[in-house]
Amino acid sequence: MYDLLQKLFPICRSLTGQGVRETLGIIADHIPLRQTELPTGTKVFDWTIPREWNIRDAFIANADGRRIVDFRQNNLHVVGYSVPVDGWFSLEALQDHLYSLEEQPEAIPYVTSYYAERWGFCLAHRERLKLQPGQYRVVIDSDLSDGYLTYGECLLPGESQQEILLSTDICHPSMANNELSGPVILTWIGRWLMSEPRRYSYRLLFIPETIGSLAYLSQHLDTLKERVIAGFNLSCLGDERLYSCVSTPYANTLADRIVNQVLPHLEGRHQVYSFLERGSDERQYCSPGVDLPVVSVGRSKYGTYPEYHTSLDNLDLVTPKGLAGGFGYVRRCIEVAEMNRIYRATCLGEPQLGRYGLYPTLNIKRGAFSMATLRNLLAYADGTNDLLAIAGITQKPVWELSELARKLEGIGLLRVVEPDSMTRAMV
Amino acid sequence: MYDLLQKLFPICRSLTGQGVRETLGIIADHIPLRQTELPTGTKVFDWTIPREWNIRDAFIANADGRRIVDFRQNNLHVVGYSVPVDGWFSLEALQDHLYSLEEQPEAIPYVTSYYAERWGFCLAHRERLKLQPGQYRVVIDSDLSDGYLTYGECLLPGESQQEILLSTDICHPSMANNELSGPVILTWIGRWLMSEPRRYSYRLLFIPETIGSLAYLSQHLDTLKERVIAGFNLSCLGDERLYSCVSTPYANTLADRIVNQVLPHLEGRHQVYSFLERGSDERQYCSPGVDLPVVSVGRSKYGTYPEYHTSLDNLDLVTPKGLAGGFGYVRRCIEVAEMNRIYRATCLGEPQLGRYGLYPTLNIKRGAFSMATLRNLLAYADGTNDLLAIAGITQKPVWELSELARKLEGIGLLRVVEPDSMTRAMV
Amino acid sequence: MYDLLQKLFPICRSLTGQGVRETLGIIADHIPLRQTELPTGTKVFDWTIPREWNIRDAFIANADGRRIVDFRQNNLHVVGYSVPVDGWFSLEALQDHLYSLEEQPEAIPYVTSYYAERWGFCLAHRERLKLQPGQYRVVIDSDLSDGYLTYGECLLPGESQQEILLSTDICHPSMANNELSGPVILTWIGRWLMSEPRRYSYRLLFIPETIGSLAYLSQHLDTLKERVIAGFNLSCLGDERLYSCVSTPYANTLADRIVNQVLPHLEGRHQVYSFLERGSDERQYCSPGVDLPVVSVGRSKYGTYPEYHTSLDNLDLVTPKGLAGGFGYVRRCIEVAEMNRIYRATCLGEPQLGRYGLYPTLNIKRGAFSMATLRNLLAYADGTNDLLAIAGITQKPVWELSELARKLEGIGLLRVVEPDSMTRAMV
Repeated sequence: MYDLLQKLFPICRSLTGQGVRETLGIIADHIPLRQTELPTGTKVFDWTIPREWNIRDAFIANADGRRIVDFRQNNLHVVGYSVPVDGWFSLEALQDHLYSLEEQPEAIPYVTSYYAERWGFCLAHRERLKLQPGQYRVVIDSDLSDGYLTYGECLLPGESQQEILLSTDICHPSMANNELSGPVILTWIGRWLMSEPRRYSYRLLFIPETIGSLAYLSQHLDTLKERVIAGFNLSCLGDERLYSCVSTPYANTLADRIVNQVLPHLEGRHQVYSFLERGSDERQYCSPGVDLPVVSVGRSKYGTYPEYHTSLDNLDLVTPKGLAGGFGYVRRCIEVAEMNRIYRATCLGEPQLGRYGLYPTLNIKRGAFSMATLRNLLAYADGTNDLLAIAGITQKPVWELSELARKLEGIGLLRVVEPDSMTRAMV
Repeated sequence: MYDLLQKLFPICRSLTGQGVRETLGIIADHIPLRQTELPTGTKVFDWTIPREWNIRDAFIANADGRRIVDFRQNNLHVVGYSVPVDGWFSLEALQDHLYSLEEQPEAIPYVTSYYAERWGFCLAHRERLKLQPGQYRVVIDSDLSDGYLTYGECLLPGESQQEILLSTDICHPSMANNELSGPVILTWIGRWLMSEPRRYSYRLLFIPETIGSLAYLSQHLDTLKERVIAGFNLSCLGDERLYSCVSTPYANTLADRIVNQVLPHLEGRHQVYSFLERGSDERQYCSPGVDLPVVSVGRSKYGTYPEYHTSLDNLDLVTPKGLAGGFGYVRRCIEVAEMNRIYRATCLGEPQLGRYGLYPTLNIKRGAFSMATLRNLLAYADGTNDLLAIAGITQKPVWELSELARKLEGIGLLRVVEPDSMTRAMV
Repeated sequence: MYDLLQKLFPICRSLTGQGVRETLGIIADHIPLRQTELPTGTKVFDWTIPREWNIRDAFIANADGRRIVDFRQNNLHVVGYSVPVDGWFSLEALQDHLYSLEEQPEAIPYVTSYYAERWGFCLAHRERLKLQPGQYRVVIDSDLSDGYLTYGECLLPGESQQEILLSTDICHPSMANNELSGPVILTWIGRWLMSEPRRYSYRLLFIPETIGSLAYLSQHLDTLKERVIAGFNLSCLGDERLYSCVSTPYANTLADRIVNQVLPHLEGRHQVYSFLERGSDERQYCSPGVDLPVVSVGRSKYGTYPEYHTSLDNLDLVTPKGLAGGFGYVRRCIEVAEMNRIYRATCLGEPQLGRYGLYPTLNIKRGAFSMATLRNLLAYADGTNDLLAIAGITQKPVWELSELARKLEGIGLLRVVEPDSMTRAMV
């Protein structure tokens, strides 16, 4: 994963343009990816697909012709969606077009202006202070013209038409955690899913943030509402500090229940954020009338770590270990979704576990209390509780319960209940 | 308000009689008041309208003819509903008819005997101890005879037939907090409501406690059950110590939700009492089968402050500032009822707030987290939450949300959902 | 009760056999008991009635013929359901058949092997350590042959066909708390119930643990599911240390509500255990598809006290005072079930309590707050709350409320609502 991340890192991505296409092309080397292009001007709910932005070069040069701010060194130097410019400016006139962070003087900030025409440069505050009065040559060799918004999707069918939605953003330029960690991990999740039997179908989306999820929703809303039983938006998954999620509006969906089961078992600290602290595409997936059961999963959450949206969000912040942890978190969520079944005991009363070799035949002191988890599973397998519910009651991890449930199913003491038959009478 | 309170203070009110009529007459100088008279003997649920009580004079005089307890000095000196008496009594015989408070030796207690024939005098315990053995002339020039129970009501129609019920008691003699603060504030609330556009209709009741609310309910129950969406019983609203409410039996009505929103934002301490600590007309409004959504609103609650039901509940305890605070509390409850609407977002997904000037077009660091309250309002405006619910979720005051909601309604991003159409599908 | 316990103590009981019959015979001297015998081989759900076990004698003798372990001295010395044996064994060979507790060297453990053929002896670890190498004569004069499983039941009809289920185990040999306290107390409960008017019918079961409750359920499940409104499994009720219960799976049945009301008012400590800590016949009564509202009631719970399942669970551990406390606990649960009615106020508004002598006619200070419990009962008697619910709201014991309710019913201010008419409109 780290190799892929290093390969994608230098590409200048934005909402639209060649950087997005190039990124999707590289991902498509690993998983089957269908790319869709929506033309500029297409209405998506309250929004309109903007013009396509492409940039070849940009710099500020001093009177000597030396490039003192250079897009080729770091694509964060240019405000995203900058209109073209080519001219000489006094330092004073230039200042209105410069962005830097006083409180982080070494960081180049990440700035965009997608929906208002502007041009600008971002630079470290320390560099900005060094600028001397005088004339500067300013060039942005970009164009904003009718084109397309591009996204990629990978559909992996499973036994059921019911789907798990996995979504991540491919619109950020050279930043590693926000947001190359998401696409890289989702690519690897896709590879892993292709190698596994799948109970559910999977829909993996690589989209530009906000406008991309809105565009996708505007085209697929009915299908998604019909099929998606849980979804995970992947964002900022590559550092080593924390595991986190952003809940759905009422924190009551299957996706919420899954992350709440998974998080406490991951190594290290974890934090559950309320929907009030949302900030990524869960904003669209969970909006009124869309109402998809999608949580955001991440490590250090966007907006909460100091390197966020600056050049410090780089290949030092994201590590192979951090990515592996993020991958493990997402995979575990998917595994829990796959294993979370409703079981029902096949006989009335407790079964005679001794007959199946599951209970000691000799009643030695406290023997009655052995096999507690297995027996608790049987006691609550009444055809209404899914394994996540029983995990909550028994305070045992769902994967331990699932292993026992499959064992009990194998010897005929439990059987799977499909949710749509939950109301059928006990036999 | 304080002037009105001073004017009403000396009048000798009781369950019935001229004092009540005189009080209603003065209130009617400020708001349109319809007065109703119910004849003695009328059955109201388990009760019967008692005889009308009127009193002209009463005193205890010593052998020298000097009045040592004098109704003309303080109408609390006579037990309410005392039967007439005129005779000479030894101190010993008189003692059975005297009421005083050992623990508050300077206070004249407030005592009534509405439903059992008695006569009696109330006096400061310190005065009582000064009484010398001997003969005393005792006169109560009262009469108890068939007459009427009188109450006043003021109906202020609004856009909707749905009503807010406001009720207060006019049966207490010269006490300022319990209960002239209620009638005085309700009069001013009436004046204020008359000057405002009203979404709801308002029913203002000035009634004698218990028998008056029962009488009113027995005549208007069906109408009230059909129309009243929230009610407030006003009692003890004029001191400066505290703001409080008494919840409905299950603390789950719109009225409860309103006071729970308003109380924490008032200046100073506040306290929510359970229905188990009720004591005023909420006892009747919330009784089984009546079940109106009526809370009691007050400052220091009846029964909890030392001056309660004594001559110390006077014009020192109630202040202009205290009354203004009580008025502000009730007005704020009404304002919250008026503004508490259900809104629904008009578009799917988040709207493009930048288009409406509601979101920065430049994505500077942490910019994504600006306009949080407005965006949270949109996120939870799903046609099921009223603004009070969203206030609870977002921990923002409902008036801040309401202002934003009207702004968003103005630019077409929200629309009002009438509760009866809440089940219609999202478009 | 203690006499009965002493009489039953020496009998060698097991799942089946003469000891059970003899025990039931003695209980039948006190209450009418119908005994049922189910033949060996009968299928009961996932189980099969085992062969009947009877034992006449058993011992280990040393080379001198001296009995060093003797069934006649304590029937715990033989592993329950031991197959017959008669032979000479070296100490080494014998060790595989000996059971003792290192951590309780003076206690003979209680061991059974109902469903796997074995023979064995139990002895104090201290005695075991004294055994010298050599040959030992080992005799168990038992037989395991087709026969019957025996249980007793006592049905006490009441006004209603709705039933309270009371169940206890009669399969333990000479141990006093687990489990002679249960049968002895249930016998006395039966005697007491016979002497009382009964609103509900009562079903008292004296059964062998697990297989007995399964057998009974397999024969009576439909009847039980139709009639039982609450049930109590009696186990370990005779010591003086604690009062406890084991809740139903979701801790939400009438039986749970009853024990939660009763426990805090018993003298001494109490503890509520979750269903996860179950261990007696509540395991069967509450199993999926059976779903009877049965809690376990006890004093120190099985498995939690050091004497449990050893010879130390004897007539020192169980005391007359302990049994009396256990009896009182169970009786109080039954009394609460009997008194727990739904009442509805007969008039709208508060009744005029002064008319009934239930309220002071003189309004002296704070007088309005007298009779609070009676008035709270009236305020919440809305035809939906049973007395247990009102006890929860008012934090008053249900028996205090019941006494007031009967008083109010007597003067016509409350009337009983049958649960099936709860939806009828208030008049």
